Amino acid sequence: MIERYTTAEMKSIWSEEARLQTWFAIELAQAKARMQMGFVPEDVVMRLYQQSGTIDWTKFSHRMQEHERELKHDVIAFLTTLEEFIGEDAKVLHFGMTSSDVVDTAFALSLQKSGRQILERLDVFEKALMYQAKKYQNTVCLGRTHGQAAEITTFGLKLLSYVAEVKRDKERLLRAIEEISHAKLSGAVGNYGNSDPQIEARVLSSLGLLVEPVSTQIVPRDRHAVFFNTLAVIGGCLERLAVEIRHLMRSEVGEAFEPFGSKQRGSSAMPHKKNPILTENVTGLARLLRSYAGAALEDQALWHERDISHSSVERVIGPDATTVLDFALVRMTSVIEGLVVDAERMRAHVDAVGEMIYSESVMLKLVEKGLERQIAYGYVQQAAFESRQEHKRFLYCLAAHLEIKKYLTHQDISDLMSHDHHLRHVQTIFDRR
Amino acid sequence: MIERYTTAEMKSIWSEEARLQTWFAIELAQAKARMQMGFVPEDVVMRLYQQSGTIDWTKFSHRMQEHERELKHDVIAFLTTLEEFIGEDAKVLHFGMTSSDVVDTAFALSLQKSGRQILERLDVFEKALMYQAKKYQNTVCLGRTHGQAAEITTFGLKLLSYVAEVKRDKERLLRAIEEISHAKLSGAVGNYGNSDPQIEARVLSSLGLLVEPVSTQIVPRDRHAVFFNTLAVIGGCLERLAVEIRHLMRSEVGEAFEPFGSKQRGSSAMPHKKNPILTENVTGLARLLRSYAGAALEDQALWHERDISHSSVERVIGPDATTVLDFALVRMTSVIEGLVVDAERMRAHVDAVGEMIYSESVMLKLVEKGLERQIAYGYVQQAAFESRQEHKRFLYCLAAHLEIKKYLTHQDISDLMSHDHHLRHVQTIFDRR
Amino acid sequence: MIERYTTAEMKSIWSEEARLQTWFAIELAQAKARMQMGFVPEDVVMRLYQQSGTIDWTKFSHRMQEHERELKHDVIAFLTTLEEFIGEDAKVLHFGMTSSDVVDTAFALSLQKSGRQILERLDVFEKALMYQAKKYQNTVCLGRTHGQAAEITTFGLKLLSYVAEVKRDKERLLRAIEEISHAKLSGAVGNYGNSDPQIEARVLSSLGLLVEPVSTQIVPRDRHAVFFNTLAVIGGCLERLAVEIRHLMRSEVGEAFEPFGSKQRGSSAMPHKKNPILTENVTGLARLLRSYAGAALEDQALWHERDISHSSVERVIGPDATTVLDFALVRMTSVIEGLVVDAERMRAHVDAVGEMIYSESVMLKLVEKGLERQIAYGYVQQAAFESRQEHKRFLYCLAAHLEIKKYLTHQDISDLMSHDHHLRHVQTIFDRR
Amino acid sequence: MIERYTTAEMKSIWSEEARLQTWFAIELAQAKARMQMGFVPEDVVMRLYQQSGTIDWTKFSHRMQEHERELKHDVIAFLTTLEEFIGEDAKVLHFGMTSSDVVDTAFALSLQKSGRQILERLDVFEKALMYQAKKYQNTVCLGRTHGQAAEITTFGLKLLSYVAEVKRDKERLLRAIEEISHAKLSGAVGNYGNSDPQIEARVLSSLGLLVEPVSTQIVPRDRHAVFFNTLAVIGGCLERLAVEIRHLMRSEVGEAFEPFGSKQRGSSAMPHKKNPILTENVTGLARLLRSYAGAALEDQALWHERDISHSSVERVIGPDATTVLDFALVRMTSVIEGLVVDAERMRAHVDAVGEMIYSESVMLKLVEKGLERQIAYGYVQQAAFESRQEHKRFLYCLAAHLEIKKYLTHQDISDLMSHDHHLRHVQTIFDRR
Repeated sequence: MIERYTTAEMKSIWSEEARLQTWFAIELAQAKARMQMGFVPEDVVMRLYQQSGTIDWTKFSHRMQEHERELKHDVIAFLTTLEEFIGEDAKVLHFGMTSSDVVDTAFALSLQKSGRQILERLDVFEKALMYQAKKYQNTVCLGRTHGQAAEITTFGLKLLSYVAEVKRDKERLLRAIEEISHAKLSGAVGNYGNSDPQIEARVLSSLGLLVEPVSTQIVPRDRHAVFFNTLAVIGGCLERLAVEIRHLMRSEVGEAFEPFGSKQRGSSAMPHKKNPILTENVTGLARLLRSYAGAALEDQALWHERDISHSSVERVIGPDATTVLDFALVRMTSVIEGLVVDAERMRAHVDAVGEMIYSESVMLKLVEKGLERQIAYGYVQQAAFESRQEHKRFLYCLAAHLEIKKYLTHQDISDLMSHDHHLRHVQTIFDRR
Repeated sequence: MIERYTTAEMKSIWSEEARLQTWFAIELAQAKARMQMGFVPEDVVMRLYQQSGTIDWTKFSHRMQEHERELKHDVIAFLTTLEEFIGEDAKVLHFGMTSSDVVDTAFALSLQKSGRQILERLDVFEKALMYQAKKYQNTVCLGRTHGQAAEITTFGLKLLSYVAEVKRDKERLLRAIEEISHAKLSGAVGNYGNSDPQIEARVLSSLGLLVEPVSTQIVPRDRHAVFFNTLAVIGGCLERLAVEIRHLMRSEVGEAFEPFGSKQRGSSAMPHKKNPILTENVTGLARLLRSYAGAALEDQALWHERDISHSSVERVIGPDATTVLDFALVRMTSVIEGLVVDAERMRAHVDAVGEMIYSESVMLKLVEKGLERQIAYGYVQQAAFESRQEHKRFLYCLAAHLEIKKYLTHQDISDLMSHDHHLRHVQTIFDRR
Repeated sequence: MIERYTTAEMKSIWSEEARLQTWFAIELAQAKARMQMGFVPEDVVMRLYQQSGTIDWTKFSHRMQEHERELKHDVIAFLTTLEEFIGEDAKVLHFGMTSSDVVDTAFALSLQKSGRQILERLDVFEKALMYQAKKYQNTVCLGRTHGQAAEITTFGLKLLSYVAEVKRDKERLLRAIEEISHAKLSGAVGNYGNSDPQIEARVLSSLGLLVEPVSTQIVPRDRHAVFFNTLAVIGGCLERLAVEIRHLMRSEVGEAFEPFGSKQRGSSAMPHKKNPILTENVTGLARLLRSYAGAALEDQALWHERDISHSSVERVIGPDATTVLDFALVRMTSVIEGLVVDAERMRAHVDAVGEMIYSESVMLKLVEKGLERQIAYGYVQQAAFESRQEHKRFLYCLAAHLEIKKYLTHQDISDLMSHDHHLRHVQTIFDRR
Repeated sequence: MIERYTTAEMKSIWSEEARLQTWFAIELAQAKARMQMGFVPEDVVMRLYQQSGTIDWTKFSHRMQEHERELKHDVIAFLTTLEEFIGEDAKVLHFGMTSSDVVDTAFALSLQKSGRQILERLDVFEKALMYQAKKYQNTVCLGRTHGQAAEITTFGLKLLSYVAEVKRDKERLLRAIEEISHAKLSGAVGNYGNSDPQIEARVLSSLGLLVEPVSTQIVPRDRHAVFFNTLAVIGGCLERLAVEIRHLMRSEVGEAFEPFGSKQRGSSAMPHKKNPILTENVTGLARLLRSYAGAALEDQALWHERDISHSSVERVIGPDATTVLDFALVRMTSVIEGLVVDAERMRAHVDAVGEMIYSESVMLKLVEKGLERQIAYGYVQQAAFESRQEHKRFLYCLAAHLEIKKYLTHQDISDLMSHDHHLRHVQTIFDRR
């Protein structure tokens, strides 16, 4: 991923050095497991652990690249370099393992770390959302459907919908992390031909991973498809919120705003502008997350016990998808934390639509009074259109309607038009979420 | 979905008549809930239930279409038609509901039914796979990576990998069904302005659905994104198996075959052919499932309390994705049930590669004897290439290798080359899956 | 595609009957070509042509389905049925052809027809857009970037951008139609083993198709990938316009509206609403078009001289993608033709932002007067924020700014604030598009 | 894009330094145009051009990043830095321009350069393919459909199919390059409010770009959707070839092989293996290209005169998609140039299928002799299945068939089985491609 969208956390998880260290950690864990089972002398393993702290991984990485150019095989290059750096003792490493036992297990660890990192971000994000949801729980604003004023609601309730979605996303991500926390040390075709399920069990458990019940040369890629699709679904949540804020920040709406630095500039040509660039940015990032998910889905149908076509995809989307989402979460959290809300403007919009939002209440009251629904609907619609076209108060148009007034008085209608009544269940929703 | 790929079950779930009946069932359930709460007289509801059995839904559908052409609103057309078919009593229906309370809830019910239908198919499919996996548990064949002979394995173990994947898919689908089994009767913007959480709770519980904790006008679409992506992931499982069988059925491989009807014809031009048309077909269907998943992901970011852009997408992919997957499962199950396995050919391929598959065992033995891994690797590779180029037995090339023979005798090497040893953990894997 | 989104034109192109008729037309054309080259007696071909008019294709289709259930091969079922319907003479048909010579060529003809149908729709759509663009060429309105008022423009110029895009789309579609107008009668693996390039040339030319220079069993699928991606790009144009109109129709904007039937109902619950349901619908359809394009891209990498995995994809997306786009074009054309424009509201929004949109002109004038750009920018931004916060006219804030007034008088600034000056190049753009 | 897949050429096109230099080149070109029209003194522009060579762009970039952190606007940070590096004269730059006039134009130049780079690669790739196609024009091998031996063909003809596809790809890319070679200097909303079409025309022509007839703040993104989809279609061509080679390199097929370095290692565990890692890698890269194309399609429907959501997408896929394709082309070209072909093995496979591939010829001859096609088909199929099941020569089974022998003698059938006859049109195809 480009520097611009790379968080420090993701950079350190996906760096070349981190990758090689993880490979080494897996080799060490396997040597230790074999030691525990009596195949490797204890002093060798102890020396290996001691040496593991002394390796200069940047130097290691350079040397390994030289080998790889010749050998065209990364794990063999890694082992060759290890022998150079560690000497004799390296001989006990990788015994009975196939490259994928190392590479795939390391990938699981990196995805697991990234997933947990994102989970933490979701936590912070949820808290920021909940804070604002509570703060604005009773801030009256328009609910809009089809981009049209529909009925009143509260800004807090709008935000609560994202709190609930983030909760779902956290559960999904937890499961997706579990999905990709499976690994295997089951050899070249998954049946432990030169290896042993007990070694695998020890190694994976010491690494915090689960045993893949039936593996091929690698862990099956349906797990990864689920993982990357989960990231895309979370991206969709961020996009929905980003689009919401972009709408609220429109010149004509102006109800809520991204935070804006005091020295920040909106446009190189137009000094008067404040643009929702953070949320527009996140909108685009969600597209990237969707696209990575598509590539992951295509990786499932590998040939026989594995072909390596998934690898180029995962080398890219492994870091890119997790990094983009991590960045987008940081960004959206800062937007929510610094969100500028214009409650007066919200209220003004409610007042402007005014009584129109009670059209349903009036219609329902007419039905209660015995009118057929479709007829009641027609009467109220006539009053609504009259009110709009002739710029008269909806209340007056209703009260003056020749048919409606047979059933409802001016006072009846006026009583129906109450914010409090309309919002009486908001607390219930807050309580149960 | 086109007729060709439509199962009877999916046809009945997604028919126009089924949709209208579901709408009516929801309206009835709401009337009943309001009756229980004292808002509607019992006799009206009883009459409505009685009438519900008498409606000719095909006739109903035609009449409703006439209304819709004029009104350009499906639910209003539905209610108008209901009033015609049911008369006076219809007045108590839809009270305090918004269209989405009906349409979205009905969509949840259709997806739930489709999901459960697919779950049943997965069950049957898993059983068919398990039957064959056990049958061929000890049928020796090549494990292949990169399309190259790698090490021996058993055909049953290959199939067991799909059993395990289908198990995962069933769990995922169960969760995905739960995701889309949430619904809402919370009104126009999700806050029960003209309605009541208690009514919603009663209605949804009677329909077998769960209450959406925080809804807008509709249930949030992250749930549907998860559902359709789950279908795509299951499609990926079918595709992986389809590709496996297509490979095994290649002229040059010929190890397993789709069932082939006695009157079936392979090619209009080439009477000698048997083509894997069923599995090729499923390969394509998996692409469709992926594409529908992409569209579902784009549906998440609706505007404010909802815009209706998701609707055209869902009208298509709701039936299409579930139907395609249902069909593909039926097809793949029949392929697995009727799978023709040529165990002799499998064995012949193992024999042809012969001793080469033990190259790793030999290398590891050399390492045990004290050689450095990379050097051992090089020696064994030299013997392997010599064997291939000069068409000599690998065993002889190894035994004759000037360096190898310093460590291993002909007998040592010969002992390493045992199928039983290599496959000693297959039963373990079967036991734990 | 579902009935709801199927135009009569597309229905007739993609019907089962049309498909079988096309197959027969190809067989006939081949028989005729072989007659011209002396291989088939003239009277047989003449009788075949006569019979072709007499076949009841619905009956034919039913009978063929019976055969297909047994034979599991559609072309062989077709030929078997033909022999039943036509008798003896059918024997000269399909000579030296492989199924794909028929099926793939027929698919080319159906796509070609669909493509041309869409091209006509684009023509009508472009005219509707151009009519409105000219009508509103000088209707002043806000240009908006980031959903923020930016500078003034005209509504006609906004629409002209779509005219230009549709022009591009027409060129792209023309090329895409040419792409998929290639076909082959080159036999089972594309080398005319049992056939003849001369026959192919005659047949395809008589059908209005081009010869694929190097085919396999089928026409290579890069052509189809281009075709379906072109449909998706056109869908993107419709979506951009749909989103534009949805924005303009927002309650708070209210500058342009979808046409609204006199009996149409906006919401079952809210009688006061007018919803942009047509453009929301088209927004969703664009997602479907994108998803079909993804599936088509996956069809490219078929195995060897062909596998049939593309077929299930194309059976679905062939009709579905073309039908959805055809429908969306009809819909958007009606929206544009019936577009309700509120020029007063547009003007009011311009006036509301007022002088702010001239911020760039003022800044540039300051730079001309010798100020450094960044400094000028800062001064103007200060005046802009002051104007917004204290609800004072921007002109006054500028003229009163302690630094600005060193360079520009009240009159200077006032002179810069002219619509006509700002819009002086609109005619130029109209002239060149 | 990750280092591993980045070519030197793409690295230099997409580096931060290159981007800033391009921005400066655009600013200079505009100053020059304004000079030619008399708005800027000649000596200032001359000094600017002189200074342009002296800037240390790495230093510049660092300083600019400091500014951007504060200003949160890249172009303003750029201009601010320019003023620092160049002083007084910088004042004439960016006059009347909006940020997008610079950024979007620079993006067009980078895409144009990348596109041309890829075009050169396609040229080299096509030549490599053509060389091998001619070399193997008459190398007999199996044509395969459904992974089944179908009829004989030549390996050169198989390769020629890719030559033809690459030719098409070059044409498509040329058009796609033209698509994204359009640019605009038309200001904030595309109507030259503070600028002039004549300046735009001069600047773009001097940069080798075309004027966008109707722009908004940016060039419309349908152009980019076409560009990135074209890259995906080219990726699909590479994937098809990659899959072909992976198939041919299978252990059981072994007809063609990726080049394999003398020190290269196939597997860390299995020293005997040669894996098609290059073509598997390219298979994965094609998935990435498809995914980027999907993101580009979503960028089309920007809000009003532009929102900036496309920008994060393009910052990533601009370099990534072009780089991945460039790399994949280099890789596939080296595979084709070094392709190892085992013509003997190809011939052996042809011989193994043997006479079966002439089944169609025999059937057609029977039809010529007066048999009905379906009956002839059945007879030949019987002989084919008999031959396969009883391991007898197809010729004998045919000649011994009780019905066939009524029409054809052993000699008749034997005469039909000629490679030369079957391949008589190969030269024709080579001539016309």
